Amino acid sequence: MSREPHVLMWTEGATQSALARAEADLTMSYTINRTITGADFDAVDQRTRKALSDKGFGVLTEIDVSATMKKKLDVDMPAYCILGACNPNMAYQAIKIEPHVGAMLPCNVILRQVGNDVEVSAVDPLASMQAIDNDALKRVAGEVRDLLADAIAAI
Amino acid sequence: MSREPHVLMWTEGATQSALARAEADLTMSYTINRTITGADFDAVDQRTRKALSDKGFGVLTEIDVSATMKKKLDVDMPAYCILGACNPNMAYQAIKIEPHVGAMLPCNVILRQVGNDVEVSAVDPLASMQAIDNDALKRVAGEVRDLLADAIAAI
Repeated sequence: MSREPHVLMWTEGATQSALARAEADLTMSYTINRTITGADFDAVDQRTRKALSDKGFGVLTEIDVSATMKKKLDVDMPAYCILGACNPNMAYQAIKIEPHVGAMLPCNVILRQVGNDVEVSAVDPLASMQAIDNDALKRVAGEVRDLLADAIAAI
Repeated sequence: MSREPHVLMWTEGATQSALARAEADLTMSYTINRTITGADFDAVDQRTRKALSDKGFGVLTEIDVSATMKKKLDVDMPAYCILGACNPNMAYQAIKIEPHVGAMLPCNVILRQVGNDVEVSAVDPLASMQAIDNDALKRVAGEVRDLLADAIAAI
């Protein structure tokens, strides 16, 4: 799948048709979302980790939400996992600029089973860090958002 | 240590003197912060986990930030760790209300060595979820914030 439509969402000067394609493929509010239709959950998980790694993100944490809820609350829910992605260079810059920013790290990428599809959603760090009044941090967060968007587009 | 000054920050009708004490002990912007003076880092880590557990939070993830930065970037920084705290009931409610909220979970509690002291900071979920326009979620986030504030006060 071409990554062009996804990347163009964050590129100035994109044509209207490219933007229309982008809107059809990706949605974004506080997360950068992409739906992989008819895909196997574990395969998408592996492709997501590879795409993150290629953009310099290690997966430092992982939570199997559905398994945790089953164990703790005995409830059933569709497959849902949270990968905690960290680009060490970016994280180190961010912590130097804003020592408490670790409260918002790592950058989560969630995978959800939605019917026959798997949705992958990366947090938009500009959204999760919206409450932090620090322009230098926002610049780093914007760079991280672009890297995450590239990763999601490349899955 | 009395937890009164901390809790009063979130209690209406607090007296001015109580508020003044609260301001001296706790600070809060997008995190709920408490400094434990002259304390051993590992001891504060254990006390924090106990306080979180007593309020229904399990620690699902942990990142030794300083060790990670040493390994990945060969830089030295004071002890810094991120505990990912999750109250399963609250998290399950939040996900039902807002399926993508996992991008902001779990609720991080960071421990930082600052000189001879250890600072413990819990994320304010109302701050990290500020970009999410969902009133029902904000109610749950407010309840979680109160539980986290209680835990930080009880360390």
